[in-house]
Amino acid sequence: MGGDDALSVVAALTPATTPVVAVDAFGGDHAPAEIVTGALTAQREHGIPVLLTGPAPRLRSVVANLGATGELRIVPAEDNIAMDEGALASLRRPRSGVAVACQLVRRGDAAAVVSAGSTGGVVATARLRLRSLPGVLRPGLAVVLPTSPNRTVLIDVGATADPKPEMLVQFGQLGVAYAQLALGVAAPKVGLLTIGAEPGKGNKLTRRAHELLAADQPHGALPLNFAGNVEGGDLLAGELDVIVSDGFTGNVALKTLEGSIRFAFGEVRGAVTATRAARVGAFLQRNGLRELRRRLDAESYGGAALLGLGGTVVIAHGASKAPAITAACRLAADLALGQITEKINERLPVARDRHRIFRGV
Amino acid sequence: MGGDDALSVVAALTPATTPVVAVDAFGGDHAPAEIVTGALTAQREHGIPVLLTGPAPRLRSVVANLGATGELRIVPAEDNIAMDEGALASLRRPRSGVAVACQLVRRGDAAAVVSAGSTGGVVATARLRLRSLPGVLRPGLAVVLPTSPNRTVLIDVGATADPKPEMLVQFGQLGVAYAQLALGVAAPKVGLLTIGAEPGKGNKLTRRAHELLAADQPHGALPLNFAGNVEGGDLLAGELDVIVSDGFTGNVALKTLEGSIRFAFGEVRGAVTATRAARVGAFLQRNGLRELRRRLDAESYGGAALLGLGGTVVIAHGASKAPAITAACRLAADLALGQITEKINERLPVARDRHRIFRGV
Repeated sequence: MGGDDALSVVAALTPATTPVVAVDAFGGDHAPAEIVTGALTAQREHGIPVLLTGPAPRLRSVVANLGATGELRIVPAEDNIAMDEGALASLRRPRSGVAVACQLVRRGDAAAVVSAGSTGGVVATARLRLRSLPGVLRPGLAVVLPTSPNRTVLIDVGATADPKPEMLVQFGQLGVAYAQLALGVAAPKVGLLTIGAEPGKGNKLTRRAHELLAADQPHGALPLNFAGNVEGGDLLAGELDVIVSDGFTGNVALKTLEGSIRFAFGEVRGAVTATRAARVGAFLQRNGLRELRRRLDAESYGGAALLGLGGTVVIAHGASKAPAITAACRLAADLALGQITEKINERLPVARDRHRIFRGV
Repeated sequence: MGGDDALSVVAALTPATTPVVAVDAFGGDHAPAEIVTGALTAQREHGIPVLLTGPAPRLRSVVANLGATGELRIVPAEDNIAMDEGALASLRRPRSGVAVACQLVRRGDAAAVVSAGSTGGVVATARLRLRSLPGVLRPGLAVVLPTSPNRTVLIDVGATADPKPEMLVQFGQLGVAYAQLALGVAAPKVGLLTIGAEPGKGNKLTRRAHELLAADQPHGALPLNFAGNVEGGDLLAGELDVIVSDGFTGNVALKTLEGSIRFAFGEVRGAVTATRAARVGAFLQRNGLRELRRRLDAESYGGAALLGLGGTVVIAHGASKAPAITAACRLAADLALGQITEKINERLPVARDRHRIFRGV
């Protein structure tokens, strides 16, 4: 069937004031059942109108199994990007679930996209279908780290693996816009992830990025509250609102952080159940530990926000189950309601010269 | 006094078969008292002959306070690299404690160096005073991660921030030599730290390094048992013996790992002492948790080994107290006894062409 016909019916159904979230129903390890279940909860319990994209016959049967026929709207997509496919696959699949979800945003039929597909594939598709905002060189992927009492935004965790120093500065601007919305901080403090705390330390990329972050922002961009270099050990210190990184290092750091916390909990569990006295102790503590686990669980992050494109995309963890998808839908709706792309446009007005120079990078 | 006179007396004191360790007594946050105490324990309890380098008058009084006058030998150095100084400082300080310690190794008066000074300063000094092994392009800094039951070597964690892909392959060779000695593994499995498990994923550096690691090793270098890409979350999985990284990413990952484990323990401590029942539980578990903490504590790593130079250098954590310095001395002596530099020479025989091409990189 023709994609355009399928899309055109959607606009009529959508009240202009409520952010509609397009959900890639077949992206992720537990797709489609967990994805659709999570989307249904977002719509039923949080009032977020959802559009599911994916092969229509299979999707209809999943929706029917959940007793949500006529309640969850479906936009057909022809096939999907497999979890083990990379960025190039997205170019071969103009009708994939993610591509159709992005087209819904581009046409104004949805306000944001949620996908638990492979990060590389979703980023490549979104870049192609949504384009960068005029003043933005490259998109950055942002997550909120589970520090307390203050949370910290880490950007980029994998959208741009080999950025230029100027792009790191822009990630700072994207991160500030995100922190203002997601953390409610008026003037977020920005740090640069590197090695060694002093300005001269780091690799070539971060030494130059440090200079640019510390200098006046060019071409009418809003000023940054730059607090200097931070190291890997500072990620969870909760002292900064935004930490900037290239996408390669940020992805390694995020996955190291998640893996290390998982490892530490595993070791604690081993230690506290090794003797009978310790098992009694573990029983007495179970509520506190369970609540802690929930807070630190990757599912509670709500997904990573791909920022700097002409539309909001939330990438959930590939292993997401229904609650993570619900959280991702809520994050996507919040970002759309908070007008994240407009805020980014304010921070980074189009600078023609820089735009021309870096467009082809 | 002249440095050469001071050095020449040492050779006569040193039996050829026992590895002497030169300890930079004034490097580190807790220098000199904790450093000298740790060195004294290494000598008294582990039979490792120690040479202390540093300003002689102050060092003599520290040694006297420990009741070790005449027991701990001192080699005078004129000044020291401060913790907040970088690599360039080392070039201005030819008589620093680290420089003198390296000269002791170069002359054959010591077999290895231990310093808790700043990583950048120690690496720069060691590169200048010890030079690279003939076939080695750049040194790599290796640590043993606290995985269980099998431990994993991560290399490089900060010696070379901007390596070429060929250097990452050599880090694999250095890591294999280290894992054979330190972990006792005959044919260590080598992984490449990157983002995304598939060969085509990563940044430019790791995509090329993956190709080189997977190909036949050039110029008579020994074969590598390459197991493919790993992600940050795999660092503590204990499934590989050696994980290769550029020094920038490796340093961020190591510090993220340490910080995350510290964070998780802090959160657990908060959770288990929040209610009276949980406090009773914590009391019942205290032995298991204490032992676990000790195992995961950064101090038990024994320090990072700087590999690929014409001598063994162990860099202890800047915050090292006496037990960490003792562990670093033991690691340094073990590496010297196990002839780590000779093993590296076997794995990477001089390849004239490659050597000439990359020398100036």
